[in-house]
Amino acid sequence: MKKFINDVDNILVESLAGFGRAHADLVEVSLDPMFVRRREPTRPGKVALISGGGSGHEPLHAGFVGHGMLDAACPGHVFTSPTPDQMIAAAAAVSGGAGTLWIVKNYAGDVMNFEMAAEMAEGESASVLVVDDVAVEDSSFTTGRRGVAGTMIVEKITGAAAEAGADLSALKALGDDVVARTRSMGVAFTSCLVPAAGSPTFTLEHDEMEMGVGIHGEPGRRREKLAPARAIAEQMTGAILQDLAPAKGQEVLLHVNGFGGTPLMELYLMFEQASAILADRGLKVARSLVGNYTTSLEMAGCSVTVTALDARLTELWDAPVHTPALRAGR
Amino acid sequence: MKKFINDVDNILVESLAGFGRAHADLVEVSLDPMFVRRREPTRPGKVALISGGGSGHEPLHAGFVGHGMLDAACPGHVFTSPTPDQMIAAAAAVSGGAGTLWIVKNYAGDVMNFEMAAEMAEGESASVLVVDDVAVEDSSFTTGRRGVAGTMIVEKITGAAAEAGADLSALKALGDDVVARTRSMGVAFTSCLVPAAGSPTFTLEHDEMEMGVGIHGEPGRRREKLAPARAIAEQMTGAILQDLAPAKGQEVLLHVNGFGGTPLMELYLMFEQASAILADRGLKVARSLVGNYTTSLEMAGCSVTVTALDARLTELWDAPVHTPALRAGR
Repeated sequence: MKKFINDVDNILVESLAGFGRAHADLVEVSLDPMFVRRREPTRPGKVALISGGGSGHEPLHAGFVGHGMLDAACPGHVFTSPTPDQMIAAAAAVSGGAGTLWIVKNYAGDVMNFEMAAEMAEGESASVLVVDDVAVEDSSFTTGRRGVAGTMIVEKITGAAAEAGADLSALKALGDDVVARTRSMGVAFTSCLVPAAGSPTFTLEHDEMEMGVGIHGEPGRRREKLAPARAIAEQMTGAILQDLAPAKGQEVLLHVNGFGGTPLMELYLMFEQASAILADRGLKVARSLVGNYTTSLEMAGCSVTVTALDARLTELWDAPVHTPALRAGR
Repeated sequence: MKKFINDVDNILVESLAGFGRAHADLVEVSLDPMFVRRREPTRPGKVALISGGGSGHEPLHAGFVGHGMLDAACPGHVFTSPTPDQMIAAAAAVSGGAGTLWIVKNYAGDVMNFEMAAEMAEGESASVLVVDDVAVEDSSFTTGRRGVAGTMIVEKITGAAAEAGADLSALKALGDDVVARTRSMGVAFTSCLVPAAGSPTFTLEHDEMEMGVGIHGEPGRRREKLAPARAIAEQMTGAILQDLAPAKGQEVLLHVNGFGGTPLMELYLMFEQASAILADRGLKVARSLVGNYTTSLEMAGCSVTVTALDARLTELWDAPVHTPALRAGR
């Protein structure tokens, strides 16, 4: 197993320690229980936004802790849900006395543990469940649709609104609205390799790809022969638009997300394909994001995410953000 | 060949078009001849900073075009030097009437073509040659040491000084000073795959790594058996420190750079190892950067770069920057 590790059981602790050290100006890492929080104390009266999930998707979620986005993130072991004690400790650490918004990707373990934490943690809370993956209904670890790269869009937009003073019920409604406006689909060229497993999660022939893959290597819609970038983009974008059914002239955010093992120049090439397809359908790509934001360890592949914007969402997307992995504005 | 491409001959054009579209607020892409420039016109009296080199190292260099860093970047085809006509056109497009500083990685083709451009372009110019790779003297495409991940540090620091009004001779001296204070070394777990070649550049057994690898997959010091992260970090950091010979108590910038195919959580783990080693040697890690900045397509591996800082370099490193791949400050 070709990985930069010392001991497979310590990967997460050693990686989080490095993350905390590299970004000590922005975040603070608690190792027991494990969570990452903003260094600055939460402003009294601000709703705390907390997300989390299995590790291996970096920079999601810890890379999005900071001004204008999350207050805390709870990392589980690789592809394993974090536990309620992590979430409860994180919520206590970043409470501003105005409640907690949990942002949860739709995987059975995450959903169950965040629900338990919500029941046990102090204070009021609400949850936004992210279900943006149009590839399949139900999957290896999920009832209903999976939550994938659209999650960071939910985190960015609700994070901006929380910073601006929105209350818990407004943030819950806003988060649900972003989820309702967001669809994703991914494709894999290679498997990822979970350190504790020591071997690839699945295998693909040299001329095959997994269309509709999940971010843990879960099966997608079907295994297909490799195709040109334009055809791949058409398939993913087509599935998204069929489901989202945006009106002509709709402004959208287009996010091409790398799974970790695909060169950036190919991601920009895919962005160009997806952009052209959206334009052909009469949509306007008003905002864009290209890069490795929701990864699947070293998996080669990418996903396309489309969010139907309105003036308010665009303004919140543009609002200042200052996190390890995303910075914009002043 | 598992890549997101339509036609191997059009990769660069389609990727650059996507890059320009995704970052239209910051940059403008010229496709013939190919260069990327800042959207905002150069301030009269500002020295123009131009870099470039073969593609496949994204976000280097085009991702660093913007306020506080480069004025333009000239991409060649994958791992192929850009041509003088690109550089001359870029220099004409971004001239502020105060001369051009060329930032050149030490590869024979790049050096030759930037020299030709410097002779043929209008106005005064100077060059900074980046030679930060301590792994080997002379290599496949290089006489002397290779220029690798330290290049973006040179670009960031001289970029900040240019923004603040430094003149050409001061920028040349500053760039040379940063080069003199910067050392890097890399290691590869897998090869990259150049699209035009269609097969991996080199092969490594499942338990082997290439210690001292170049960013085009050039051979390093030796092929070795895999080792724990701490031992790998010790070898790279040790070679760097032996060469740089910093005084005890020296403040340094530590940059752990991914080559494209290594998960971010492993890069942070390597940052933690390298940090601890520097601290053991009595050095102070005052600034840090972790991520995929100077890549080698999908190569798995990473490099460590150390720059010995002083108060002025630290201030320039901290200065605002607003580019597609690096943002900081206001």
